[in-house]
Amino acid sequence: MSKATAIAHPNLAFLKYWGKRDSTLNIPINNSISMNLDAVQTVTTVEFNAAFANDEVVVLEQGGGGRARFDQRVSKHLDRLRSRAGSSLRARVITRNSFPAGTGFASSASGFAALTMAGSAALGLDLSERELSILSRMGSGSASRSIPDGIVEWLAGDSSDTSYARQLVPPDYWQLIDVAVLVSAEEKKVSSSEGHELAMNSPFWPVRLEALPGKYVRMSQAIHDRDFITFGRELESEAMMMHTIMMTSAHMDGDAWRSGIYYWTGDTLALVQAVQEWRAAGLQVYFTLDAGPTVHLICLETDREAVVSAVNMLAEQSGRAHWSLTVNRPGLGARLTDAHLEAR
Amino acid sequence: MSKATAIAHPNLAFLKYWGKRDSTLNIPINNSISMNLDAVQTVTTVEFNAAFANDEVVVLEQGGGGRARFDQRVSKHLDRLRSRAGSSLRARVITRNSFPAGTGFASSASGFAALTMAGSAALGLDLSERELSILSRMGSGSASRSIPDGIVEWLAGDSSDTSYARQLVPPDYWQLIDVAVLVSAEEKKVSSSEGHELAMNSPFWPVRLEALPGKYVRMSQAIHDRDFITFGRELESEAMMMHTIMMTSAHMDGDAWRSGIYYWTGDTLALVQAVQEWRAAGLQVYFTLDAGPTVHLICLETDREAVVSAVNMLAEQSGRAHWSLTVNRPGLGARLTDAHLEAR
Repeated sequence: MSKATAIAHPNLAFLKYWGKRDSTLNIPINNSISMNLDAVQTVTTVEFNAAFANDEVVVLEQGGGGRARFDQRVSKHLDRLRSRAGSSLRARVITRNSFPAGTGFASSASGFAALTMAGSAALGLDLSERELSILSRMGSGSASRSIPDGIVEWLAGDSSDTSYARQLVPPDYWQLIDVAVLVSAEEKKVSSSEGHELAMNSPFWPVRLEALPGKYVRMSQAIHDRDFITFGRELESEAMMMHTIMMTSAHMDGDAWRSGIYYWTGDTLALVQAVQEWRAAGLQVYFTLDAGPTVHLICLETDREAVVSAVNMLAEQSGRAHWSLTVNRPGLGARLTDAHLEAR
Repeated sequence: MSKATAIAHPNLAFLKYWGKRDSTLNIPINNSISMNLDAVQTVTTVEFNAAFANDEVVVLEQGGGGRARFDQRVSKHLDRLRSRAGSSLRARVITRNSFPAGTGFASSASGFAALTMAGSAALGLDLSERELSILSRMGSGSASRSIPDGIVEWLAGDSSDTSYARQLVPPDYWQLIDVAVLVSAEEKKVSSSEGHELAMNSPFWPVRLEALPGKYVRMSQAIHDRDFITFGRELESEAMMMHTIMMTSAHMDGDAWRSGIYYWTGDTLALVQAVQEWRAAGLQVYFTLDAGPTVHLICLETDREAVVSAVNMLAEQSGRAHWSLTVNRPGLGARLTDAHLEAR
């Protein structure tokens, strides 16, 4: 078998990955916690063939074609798999996201998880979940978390072998809902990689370092206990801690001094403020944000309709017809499928 | 002389007053630094008269009348002055702001400074600048800073007698410009007094406490040295430190948990982000914000026109016709005038 296809989901971090201990190996400062998002996914087919002269990547567009091109980051990742398998065959990678890139879902997470799983299977490697998570992490840190099912913890570790993700609870353990509100289709100006490097510039960074072990214990316990109020408060405080650290990460951008990094737009702020009012009105909803303007509203299944209605009403009242909603539940991890993609 | 009139300006804090050591006496945690804003002012006439049965306050509206009413906070402040003068006469206070209240200029600062100066003169008290500043502080903390001329420092002190403002540099020492952009006429939802109390709830509060002495030294030195770049970076970092502490001041509001306090609107965020881009394009401008959505753009006289143009262009491009600009230079402190106000 020299061809395999895998499906993986982006994940949403509840306890954030922001700051690296080793930026070559993507070893993070801290344990993080995330949920796989079941409504969005990447499918990737990898074929190794002696007839291929070069690695080639075809990104299929929604409803359209896709042209083969060389992708250095993918090729480098294939090297990791080839070196593991003792192979020197070149590959064709065909991949398709069910969602647009750069708009709030971490396509690098689902992408590298699916690539790792499909590529290793196509090479005949029989890897454990832990090995797949470690390899995915080397492609993109948060991809490690898209390997196991459900709600996941990524143990920071202190070396490549000890830095991997494992399941915290399975997908059906707790009926958590993520109502993702995509407010902007613009590409973000500061990449996450740059953001990771600048985090230490914030005067608040030492507070975060000291707070992280306690946050991890409280949040993982709240998930085990299905204690939504404790979980929600930890979640929202964590998102605000990350974003206020960003906003105070002063740095030079060429000749220009910037007092911080902003992933927010006015729409992000409007939702963050609306959540405070919705809770005051009795709705149990909390927000989190990744490194982008998309606001993820977290509630229990029982409040899903009320949250969706509240967002739609706000969009209506404030003339924000461009908002797009995606409702996610805890999803599976990366897995193989027989339905291969074809380059058209 | 039983009647006197004083003029005072609101002030803009460069190094913020946020957090009190003593909330009855308004003794702050830290030294703060501010500039009197010359383009906006409060005029207050105080008349003591044996014929008055009660204290009465008339707030003259712009272009309209004004009805006499009892104002507990003003009456309490008059008690402080009466007790100093050994008088029991009741007063009529007529006051007029050149700007709307609650929209970004601290009317309580100019108001209590003018009231203290006019009231003490009407009672025949001969007070020093320091005594006037201390008395003004008891009415409203930041009013202490509207007494001296120019750019001012409020020494925190550790008792009522040692907590007062004095001049750092006179108004003509440095050609600093404040282009104030009033983005919203809405009243703020969280009062400054509440905000002061909640600051300690932020996990970042200890970082601020530790950073304050260094901030004070660096900022006052930059003002003495007329070093605009050092000053601007300190100024903007300070504003962001205060506002990110607000945004992470989690608290209960009745039954509802709030992850923080927001004085920003989408317009505030748009200006904060625009300033980063303007600097990248070579314009030397920095922002600061008080406890409200108004953005104060600080530049040197040489860049005043360019900054005003940049704001107008942004307002134009983004359909924000409601923005209102006020250009301020360092202003005088509180002083007496012979032009008394009359209730109409």
